[in-house]
Amino acid sequence: MSVPVRKAIRDIVGYTPGEQPQESGWTKLNTNENPYPPSPRVIQAVCDAATMNLNVYPDALATEFRRAAAAVFHLDPDWILAANGSDENLTIIVRTACENGQTIAYPYPSYVLYETLAQIQGCIVRRIPLDESFAWSAETADSIRRQARVVFVPNPNSPTGNRWSVDQLADLVPNDGLLVLDEAYGDFADPPHRAEMLHDSRFVGRAVVTRTLSKSYSLAGLRFGFSIANPILTAEMRKCKDSYNCDAISIAAATAAIRDQDWMQNNRSKIIATRSRLTERLPEFGFTVCPSEANFSWVRHATGQHEAIYQRLKQKRILVRYMQFPGAAADGGRLDGLRITVGTDNEIDRLLAEMNFAVGSVS
Amino acid sequence: MSVPVRKAIRDIVGYTPGEQPQESGWTKLNTNENPYPPSPRVIQAVCDAATMNLNVYPDALATEFRRAAAAVFHLDPDWILAANGSDENLTIIVRTACENGQTIAYPYPSYVLYETLAQIQGCIVRRIPLDESFAWSAETADSIRRQARVVFVPNPNSPTGNRWSVDQLADLVPNDGLLVLDEAYGDFADPPHRAEMLHDSRFVGRAVVTRTLSKSYSLAGLRFGFSIANPILTAEMRKCKDSYNCDAISIAAATAAIRDQDWMQNNRSKIIATRSRLTERLPEFGFTVCPSEANFSWVRHATGQHEAIYQRLKQKRILVRYMQFPGAAADGGRLDGLRITVGTDNEIDRLLAEMNFAVGSVS
Repeated sequence: MSVPVRKAIRDIVGYTPGEQPQESGWTKLNTNENPYPPSPRVIQAVCDAATMNLNVYPDALATEFRRAAAAVFHLDPDWILAANGSDENLTIIVRTACENGQTIAYPYPSYVLYETLAQIQGCIVRRIPLDESFAWSAETADSIRRQARVVFVPNPNSPTGNRWSVDQLADLVPNDGLLVLDEAYGDFADPPHRAEMLHDSRFVGRAVVTRTLSKSYSLAGLRFGFSIANPILTAEMRKCKDSYNCDAISIAAATAAIRDQDWMQNNRSKIIATRSRLTERLPEFGFTVCPSEANFSWVRHATGQHEAIYQRLKQKRILVRYMQFPGAAADGGRLDGLRITVGTDNEIDRLLAEMNFAVGSVS
Repeated sequence: MSVPVRKAIRDIVGYTPGEQPQESGWTKLNTNENPYPPSPRVIQAVCDAATMNLNVYPDALATEFRRAAAAVFHLDPDWILAANGSDENLTIIVRTACENGQTIAYPYPSYVLYETLAQIQGCIVRRIPLDESFAWSAETADSIRRQARVVFVPNPNSPTGNRWSVDQLADLVPNDGLLVLDEAYGDFADPPHRAEMLHDSRFVGRAVVTRTLSKSYSLAGLRFGFSIANPILTAEMRKCKDSYNCDAISIAAATAAIRDQDWMQNNRSKIIATRSRLTERLPEFGFTVCPSEANFSWVRHATGQHEAIYQRLKQKRILVRYMQFPGAAADGGRLDGLRITVGTDNEIDRLLAEMNFAVGSVS
């Protein structure tokens, strides 16, 4: 059957998110979820909201949430745009800024969803090659500044976990476009950004920070993110969102979550401590571990048998993320590796206990 | 400050939804919400979901919901695409089917959000003029079939409340495009559609039905909708949604809601009975009432002073929807009127009790 669909859509496979087994019994270290539950105040807020007026439309602008988030970032609420997960923020940015045929750039290896967003919008994708210290060359930056309409930079990056400095990032601000700092993992950085660079003259009016409650606030199931940008830009972005893009329950839950900074910081500390344990132990099994400022580690094994190790762990019902990036290796070949989410101490103990089995078979 | 934004976005004001006062004390008859609460099973499902694993990602395909909805419509779950409100379904359809510069058509007067969706996508808007019986001419239909890439038809229509027949709708299926039947109010029709026409040869592969839980299921606050379309088309549309477009709580709540058909049908019956009372009484105050198959009535007053009546009701903290459609009157001028949501019997009694005040001042 032939269906009336844009060629750009027919030609893509769409983004494939990490495996999400819906049954229990898995040690899930593959999609960078927070292993700890959200604040108890979130659960209370959800139940309270359920018995309020679900029959009426929610606040289209998520005012209460924006006030709470603005207080954390020391900004006016007009800088904040709430969304149905930061994925929606990224889509809104593309639709606000990019015409068909314009260029969207992003560091490579990084979050390949940006390529899907570009393809859906009919944009050209340009990868920014990273050297072994995850830097880009001055020539590349110069070319990107001139050509790109939107540059997406996850900071810290995924899967590598590195973080770029404000000076490095300033080199990628397009002359006529936007730099989007996707700070999904920003709260795990040391120290976390607080969107200060938006006031730096090199970024003013040409940068957007996106944040999610999925990671540091333990709310991947809730779908709630927000962007931070100059109010003039935010007002334009608002035109591209669905009228009521956030529901009443998630607004209430997200507001409770961001107000409970202590809960988030406490979980952050536990995760960073566990990350240290993980990264100290993994070399014993033949892994090289990339220093991480996020809630995951990017590791590569001496044998290069990453897919086999992933499969062996899966046999034990442990999921890590096997990732491959064609063309990203220093020799121009395929770079692959494993991205391991920092779970609880118990989960990491389980992983380490099975690691001899997993790597033994490939050594 | 100049910000890098597409001209199409800078040029629009964006869609303005109906007023949503967040404080209590209003009789809210302006945004076609259901005045009755959702099924108690929904509230239970929300609280249960809150204590489950909100820290992990939800099912990206809302499988449980799709199974439940498919059972109601006697289809395979592959026909269903769940979304963050049917607004998201409409956006997904536009992004899947429409290139820049293609034409999006819709009956006029109707839901002007379609114009905003077209503008964001860089499409041309074409209005399908309706005569006094809400029909389009054969010549117009022929031209639309040849030119439009997507035709949006709310059925029943808003604000008028009329419903078009399957034969009328078949005349609008584009030769190379999609007819989208926006059945937001479909459950209030007599009898409700069950997407049967998708199997009619005139529609196969070229029609999409969209549904929402906002109206008949009393869940405007939840943001949950779904589309029904051939699985081949649905698979293409899926590429354009955000990876996790529905959250774990709303999936659980929507699944509970659609499984409780008795609750929905019982509320539907009450609303239809109240609609009869409303439409019988309004002529006493000088209104002409358009026959409605939805949960609202489109009324026009002998004086033509619709905005003044709206304002007088608002003084009494009663909100109805004042709507105006330039160029939609029979003489080519502006058509305006009031769209009144069918509330509870008590709410409609309040409205009727203030109606002498509201219209007395303008007579």
